[in-house]
Amino acid sequence: MSEREQVGREVMLGLGIDPDAVIASVAPLDDRFGTTIVEYAFGDIVSRPGLDLRTRQLVTLALLAAQGGCGPQLDTHIPATLRAGATRAEIVALFVHLTPYVGIPRSLNALYQAKELFAAADSQEGTP
Amino acid sequence: MSEREQVGREVMLGLGIDPDAVIASVAPLDDRFGTTIVEYAFGDIVSRPGLDLRTRQLVTLALLAAQGGCGPQLDTHIPATLRAGATRAEIVALFVHLTPYVGIPRSLNALYQAKELFAAADSQEGTP
Amino acid sequence: MSEREQVGREVMLGLGIDPDAVIASVAPLDDRFGTTIVEYAFGDIVSRPGLDLRTRQLVTLALLAAQGGCGPQLDTHIPATLRAGATRAEIVALFVHLTPYVGIPRSLNALYQAKELFAAADSQEGTP
Amino acid sequence: MSEREQVGREVMLGLGIDPDAVIASVAPLDDRFGTTIVEYAFGDIVSRPGLDLRTRQLVTLALLAAQGGCGPQLDTHIPATLRAGATRAEIVALFVHLTPYVGIPRSLNALYQAKELFAAADSQEGTP
Amino acid sequence: MSEREQVGREVMLGLGIDPDAVIASVAPLDDRFGTTIVEYAFGDIVSRPGLDLRTRQLVTLALLAAQGGCGPQLDTHIPATLRAGATRAEIVALFVHLTPYVGIPRSLNALYQAKELFAAADSQEGTP
Amino acid sequence: MSEREQVGREVMLGLGIDPDAVIASVAPLDDRFGTTIVEYAFGDIVSRPGLDLRTRQLVTLALLAAQGGCGPQLDTHIPATLRAGATRAEIVALFVHLTPYVGIPRSLNALYQAKELFAAADSQEGTP
Repeated sequence: MSEREQVGREVMLGLGIDPDAVIASVAPLDDRFGTTIVEYAFGDIVSRPGLDLRTRQLVTLALLAAQGGCGPQLDTHIPATLRAGATRAEIVALFVHLTPYVGIPRSLNALYQAKELFAAADSQEGTP
Repeated sequence: MSEREQVGREVMLGLGIDPDAVIASVAPLDDRFGTTIVEYAFGDIVSRPGLDLRTRQLVTLALLAAQGGCGPQLDTHIPATLRAGATRAEIVALFVHLTPYVGIPRSLNALYQAKELFAAADSQEGTP
Repeated sequence: MSEREQVGREVMLGLGIDPDAVIASVAPLDDRFGTTIVEYAFGDIVSRPGLDLRTRQLVTLALLAAQGGCGPQLDTHIPATLRAGATRAEIVALFVHLTPYVGIPRSLNALYQAKELFAAADSQEGTP
Repeated sequence: MSEREQVGREVMLGLGIDPDAVIASVAPLDDRFGTTIVEYAFGDIVSRPGLDLRTRQLVTLALLAAQGGCGPQLDTHIPATLRAGATRAEIVALFVHLTPYVGIPRSLNALYQAKELFAAADSQEGTP
Repeated sequence: MSEREQVGREVMLGLGIDPDAVIASVAPLDDRFGTTIVEYAFGDIVSRPGLDLRTRQLVTLALLAAQGGCGPQLDTHIPATLRAGATRAEIVALFVHLTPYVGIPRSLNALYQAKELFAAADSQEGTP
Repeated sequence: MSEREQVGREVMLGLGIDPDAVIASVAPLDDRFGTTIVEYAFGDIVSRPGLDLRTRQLVTLALLAAQGGCGPQLDTHIPATLRAGATRAEIVALFVHLTPYVGIPRSLNALYQAKELFAAADSQEGTP
């Protein structure tokens, strides 16, 4: 295992993202690309000093929400952003902050997805 | 002047953005829209509690860089983000952070613009 | 209730969009943003003189279709555009008109959604 | 000359767009594509019944402004939209109308380009 | 039937895309647009000499994956690209190739869709 | 120098792109990111087997043209695509092929840039 992969795996585990699940999700198609994601996105980029992880994750959410069509990625990164120390209220404030720059539809769709994720997490927690 | 406009103007002045210049830039076309930008973008949204101004501005830069074609807005918001307390190094780290999510071209173009703005600011300062 | 909210609510009701439903849809996350949408999008912008409501709504549909991933917004705005005085044939002509400028996929996806909405409305009407 | 090309040429001339200039602009690269644009965009699509030309052109402007990076196309289509019967005030209202759906930057950049085009037209007219 | 439509139909049939199904899918809304797609996209453009069909289809997949929200079009064009002579491995390599230019989310979403399509094709084939 | 960087440098040199120039272009801002581009974009991704370099470069051009605002990247990658074995006519055919999928404006802007680059190359060659 490369050093970059080790760094990437640590960053992912700190965010509650399972690197082996990411790798497995593309393994039937390509036996290398999943590892490249771990090495590059998390090992080379997200692990960099210069910006704290909480801010990085808020920016990641903004980029995913703004481009649209990233439902699966928001499912992964909304919980990861909470793990990185952001609060639900900050994630909501973030998605509201998008509107002057990319318009209301992208903002609302991200808020609706956050609402469902938060509700699902609460109902799971509340299960006796 | 509405309370929202007052709030918006204060936020803008804190970021080193001149509200009257924004209003004047569209005034030959529309005598109301510039004020709406002050009231809405800065008075309603950016002024909200729930996310600190420095984080907001970093997110704004990410959204401008990611959508491309926002050179004039980056010219305004890169200095504004420095005013909001972010460092040059954080802005650079932010633009590098874009790459796994929106690709290298948007990231590089924002970095090149930042490089020119920083150099222009330094050379202005260095003028005896 | 602000004057802008009152204006916005009237515009929305004229389009058959329930302002309280919009506000309620984000209320679990944020008690203010729904009202901001009413005030800003409908009170400040859509209510403006200078462009008739039917043209505005056709433009809104074009913008939603062109950016993709706005299914929920098209569900709201296709009926609203009919309320504003456009015909089904005009909405179809509009989505066809997109193709030279943004390509066929965005156009087809909007047409498929319109087809389903029109069929659902017809079958509901036909219910004895 | 195909019937579609004839129809396309008439539509273009009605909008003040020179079909031969469009064809010439790509002729050094491809001797067919310019004609395809005339035939398809203007002959097949813009010439269709079902939506009046003024509304079509306003929608075209909205699509060009919203995707960004279409300066050369706005240079062509802003005057064409005036030719189609829209007023300057309507074009301004249109660009302002973009903001709730695609954000303020795209709206402002289109307004700035319109401002320059209008000023250039006025100064040309004013030349003694 | 125009010559362009004939050419377009042949290209489509060679790709395993049924022109009548495309025409039928929009016929309830517009009795002409489906034919325009056959004539223009396949008759005027894809049929052109200058680039082989396999390369054209790989480029088409890249464009659909990169803009997001084109699930229905990928469902049509992934099998069509296999028909044009590309292998599954090349389609996977293509979607991986997107990442430096448009980011990992668009790449992953296309890969996930390809994975499902390939699995569905295999299970259908494997049915005794 | 990592093995990935070595691989990336070889790929770049084969395409006529100077890795040291890329690294130098961001070095005043960040002493690591330029190397990451060499390692990741060219070492990890473009160097992969599974798709020939000429096809990869044509896809890269399509992605750059389609997203707009990538003038500097097209300046680099149009010559690189010629180096990879594609002809000028294929690049033109590629940009024409974009239109059914992303619209005519993105296609035309890429063609105009190619026209200028080709003319500049020819005039340079023609200099006695």
